[in-house]
Order: sequence, then C-alpha cells, then structure tokens
Amino acid sequence: MLEDKNKKFTPLSELGEFGLIDHLSKLLTFKREDTIIGIGDDAAILDHNGYETLISKDLLTEGVHFDFFYTPLKHLGYKAIVVNISDIAAMGGEPTHAIVGIAVSARSSVEALEEIYEGMQIACSRYGIELVGGDTTTSTSGMTISVTAIGRVKKGEAILRSTAKPSDLIVVTGDLGGAYCGLLVLEREKEVFKANPYVQPDLSPYDYVVRRLLRPEARTDALEQLKALGIRPTSMIDISDGLSSELLHITTKSGVGARIYENKLPIDQQTFKVCEEMQLNATTVALNGGEDYELLFTIPLSDYEKIKNHPDFTVIGHMTEPNLPATLVTNLNEEIPITAQGWNSFKKQNT
Amino acid sequence: MLEDKNKKFTPLSELGEFGLIDHLSKLLTFKREDTIIGIGDDAAILDHNGYETLISKDLLTEGVHFDFFYTPLKHLGYKAIVVNISDIAAMGGEPTHAIVGIAVSARSSVEALEEIYEGMQIACSRYGIELVGGDTTTSTSGMTISVTAIGRVKKGEAILRSTAKPSDLIVVTGDLGGAYCGLLVLEREKEVFKANPYVQPDLSPYDYVVRRLLRPEARTDALEQLKALGIRPTSMIDISDGLSSELLHITTKSGVGARIYENKLPIDQQTFKVCEEMQLNATTVALNGGEDYELLFTIPLSDYEKIKNHPDFTVIGHMTEPNLPATLVTNLNEEIPITAQGWNSFKKQNT
Repeated sequence: MLEDKNKKFTPLSELGEFGLIDHLSKLLTFKREDTIIGIGDDAAILDHNGYETLISKDLLTEGVHFDFFYTPLKHLGYKAIVVNISDIAAMGGEPTHAIVGIAVSARSSVEALEEIYEGMQIACSRYGIELVGGDTTTSTSGMTISVTAIGRVKKGEAILRSTAKPSDLIVVTGDLGGAYCGLLVLEREKEVFKANPYVQPDLSPYDYVVRRLLRPEARTDALEQLKALGIRPTSMIDISDGLSSELLHITTKSGVGARIYENKLPIDQQTFKVCEEMQLNATTVALNGGEDYELLFTIPLSDYEKIKNHPDFTVIGHMTEPNLPATLVTNLNEEIPITAQGWNSFKKQNT
Repeated sequence: MLEDKNKKFTPLSELGEFGLIDHLSKLLTFKREDTIIGIGDDAAILDHNGYETLISKDLLTEGVHFDFFYTPLKHLGYKAIVVNISDIAAMGGEPTHAIVGIAVSARSSVEALEEIYEGMQIACSRYGIELVGGDTTTSTSGMTISVTAIGRVKKGEAILRSTAKPSDLIVVTGDLGGAYCGLLVLEREKEVFKANPYVQPDLSPYDYVVRRLLRPEARTDALEQLKALGIRPTSMIDISDGLSSELLHITTKSGVGARIYENKLPIDQQTFKVCEEMQLNATTVALNGGEDYELLFTIPLSDYEKIKNHPDFTVIGHMTEPNLPATLVTNLNEEIPITAQGWNSFKKQNT
C-alpha cells in the first residue's frame, strides 16, 4: 500500500540495479562515529573498538540467480556463502562469520534445506568462518536465500574502491567469462532435455566453466599471496557483475580514468571453446559476463616487478588521469570506451 | 536439485519452525574463539576486541508476514527494522547498525521501494542506528525483506535465554495479544472490502491494535528503565511468536520450570473488545498471538519491590524447580501445562 496512490511510478528497469542503489542510498544518512563506511563499497565498515568490522549482504533468488533444474542444492548453499565471503575479501578483510535467512515454500522438504545447509557448512569450514544462525521462514513461492557475512580488518587497513591513483596498474586474479559460459552451457542442455528427456547430457567437456558458475570460490588465497609478495593494493573490488562494470565502479569512486588491453584479458581455453560454439565474442564475455568472483585491484606501478610473472595475477592495464574515461584498447589497436553491460537483474526479468 | 533423488522427503510442516531450526542447527559447528554464542538465542554474539557484537536476522515475506492489501509500505519498512532491533534489545544490547536485502518483482516501482526505505530510515533515526547498505534484487514473485541488525554489549553483559533461576520472577513489558487482534480486524475488513469495494472501513475504534500489528516498537526504552531501577534481568527474550512459546524457550534453555497466572496477564481494553467481537478467549490470544515485540524477562525475587508498581512492567509469575513443567494457573485456579502454539509459518501455509 503506497502512501499516496496518485503518485506516478517509475519501473525498476528504468533505473537498473546500480541506479536504484544510488537512488535509494540518498535516503540514508550516516552520522554515527562508529560507521566508517556505510554504503558504496563491497562491505560496510564498522568501528568496533580498534578493529573494524566488515559486513556485507547478498540475496540469491530462485529463477533469477539460480535454477533448480541444474543447481545442486549443496552447491547452492556453498555458493551463497562464498559470494558473501568474496565481498569481505574484496575489502582486504578476513571473513569470520555469516548469518543466513532462507525463505522457502512450505511444500519444500527438510532434506532440501539440509543439503543447502550442508553446502553452507562446507563453505564455512573451507574458509574458516562460522554460521551463527539466522531465520528460516516460508514464502508463497520461490526460494530466497539471504546471507550476511561478517569480517574484520585492522583499523584503517580496509582496501576501498575509491583509492586508486593515476598510473596504478590494473590487475585481475584467475580468468574471466567462465561462469557466464557455464550458464550458457547449462541453459542449452536444459532446452535439449526439455525437448527430449531421454538424452543424457555429457557435461565433461565443460566441467571447468560449469564449476565456475555452480561452485565458485572466493579469492581469499589471492590476498595471502599479495601479502607474501609484499604488495598492498591501492583499491579493490570483486567481479560479481562483470569486469566492465566493476572497473567503472573503481574509476567512478576513485575519480580517475583507466585503460585496459584486450590482448591481456585472461580467458580460459574452455571459455574460448564455448564462445566459439555459441558464436560469441570471448572479449565481450570476459568484459560483461558476471559471477566470476575474481578480484580486480590496482597496485602502484613500482610493484610491477613483484607481480609480473605470477601465474594467478594478470596485469590488464593501468589507471589514467582524472579527466580521462575508462577505455579498452582492442587487438586492432582501437581505443573504445568501456560501458557497464554487467548483469542487471531488473532488466533481465523484463526481456 | 537434490544430491540423492531417491531420498525420502520430510515436509517442513512436520517439523515446524522451531523443530526445523533445531534440526538444521545440528549441521553447524562452532570452534572459533570469537564466537561467543552461535545459534539458540535472539542474536548471535561475536567477540570484537573486548566488546561483544550482537547480530540478528529476520526475514519478512509477502503473503506470509505481510499483506500489501492493508500494509502501508512505510510501516513495512519501519517494522522490518524494528523487529530486528527487538532481537538486539532482547539480548540487553544497544542496536547500532542494520543491513538490508530486498528481493522484489521487476514489475514493482522505484517509488514503492522508496517508501519502504523511508520507513526504514525513520526507524533507524528513531532508534539511533544506521542502515549500512545491503542488496536489492528481483524475485520471480512476491517480496522478501531480509534485515540483519548489529548491536553491541559490554563483554559478558548480554542477557541470555539460558540463565533464568528457579524462584526468579517472570515479567513482561506492555500488553499482549494486541498485534494478533489487529491482524484479525484487518483480515475482516479485507473480506468486507472484497465483497463490497464501496464500503469504507472505519478502523478508528481499533487504532491501537492495528498499530500494534503494522507499526510495532522495540522496547529499548524498557532496558533503560530497568537500568534506572537498578535491575539486571537474569534472562530475556522478545515476544515475537507469542508468550507461551517464548516462555518455553526460556524454561527449556534455562532448564527450569515456570508458573504464570491468567489474572496477571496484561491485556489492553481494545484487545478484549476485539476478542469479544470475534468470540475468542482473550487469554488464549495473549498467550499465543505473536508479533507483540514486548520483552519477557526474569528478575531475582529480591528485586520485586523495585518493579512492583511500575506501570509498564507486569509480574506474571515465577520460575520453578528444574523438574517442573511450565504451567498457567487459570482464573478458576486450575493449573494447566503451557504448550507452544505460537505462530508457525510452515503450518500456516498448509492450512
């Protein structure tokens, strides 16, 4: 029930997810001394007596973020925890706890919830965190999983999105576009199955990309490697919505430009193979496919020697002066502006 | 997708909400030194460098916890925050922050979300806390609101459910059963409206009980009053599912019995009036109607003089020895066992 029924309505798709967040965040005010960062980064930062507490929240909804047709429940539980840990890692923090809410149809079974919780528990053990409860309730239809992750970082040591400097190098962990290719493969097999339920799909040629989608990992290990290399990133974000949109978050928040190079983008062979099969451009997929949960960060130019031959870190470009845009230098040596074409759950539903 | 498709399934309704929580909690392990309390109380307790951080989570789902037919969006936002603050208050804590997730149909409007956020912001200001972000995404159908509240308490000062002693007095704040009567009135008016949309309901004779449902408050003020009176409760819980079920949480966790008195239960005149109209027993409504968000707590017998004439606190009984059950002494002086008939969202959907 709206307060004023004569108000005119703006469809959510008009603003998109980021526009909506910006819009709603104007309604919030921050005055407490212990609120170090409210909104606008991967996690909020609260001052707890010298240490800073990080807190992040992600929702996963059935039919939007996952499809029970091809999502094993244990993997779903695992992923729900991991995507939140990824937000804490993207602040340079140590994840410590999670709290979970699940809204589920009353027609669901205890065993289904058990498998989800088992997957969550496996993720928690893997990352050394603990699940400290939550809320389970019914929904009138599809399942919604809400996870809040808690972490900590020494005072002042959180790595923000807003602190990249011109001339910093831009680095990503792992490879990009795999999770989106996994989704494309699973959606294709779903259609095949719907047409003929007797065909058993052979997913083994796609094991890597399918795993990227269904059972991603958070790159807490990359933080440890950076520490061992003596590198402190100047800014960081996790890649949940796609490289383009995450890079734009950093350039916008830091007030600098960026230039990345098509021939530097790390792409797995299986990702190339799926792109070929689906007649897609692998660069577009690496730029805009979401859910890779790799880390995107910037480091001082002077740290280049420390990182240049590392198998898990790829330098893909560098930040530029404040008045410059974020651009991609293509293999044909054209420089084109980067736009956010990341995953937009509001538009997705309307198409 | 379940891992083993030949598994037999247990419907959620068979376990009920508390049974399900107990069942799933066996899947969780707690070993971290900074996890003071994982699950089993109103909020989890984390050790953050001397202070303890409280964290609680509640989900509200459309069609189960709220009905847009009669729920103003601003009140919904307000309530979503308040019910979580209530959990922090029930630990004797000071609420400090909240983080919000909303899953909403893509067909919803920006204005609708704005009103919800405005209501949340009003609640946050009212209770001196800050909303530090969250996640907004689409759902394929109804709305789910997930709020995680953060609070703090001095080390060792959290008030648990598990620490009531035999002979302690049982006290409640405010009055009971009002929110459930508000729900009954609004459901009745909804039916009237559906039969004849031209009838404008007059809710003014029911303003108090309707407000109890739609715009509850968390009793942080009661904590301050207790402090001023020099009383430290020995155990505490908030009444979200009904007095009976909350009292049983305390007796079970504390390992003691309890005896409460029908003629002591605080019930508002409007609640009596609605019970009369609906031909319901007001005691049953006070015992089992949920969503009052009052506090139920125990105090040492020696504190009786400090509290006995307080207008906002009612002594309704006392704890008894460990081997005794929780009972109600009726107005006819019969002693009957108390059973948990609180709100069960899993069963509710099946009836």
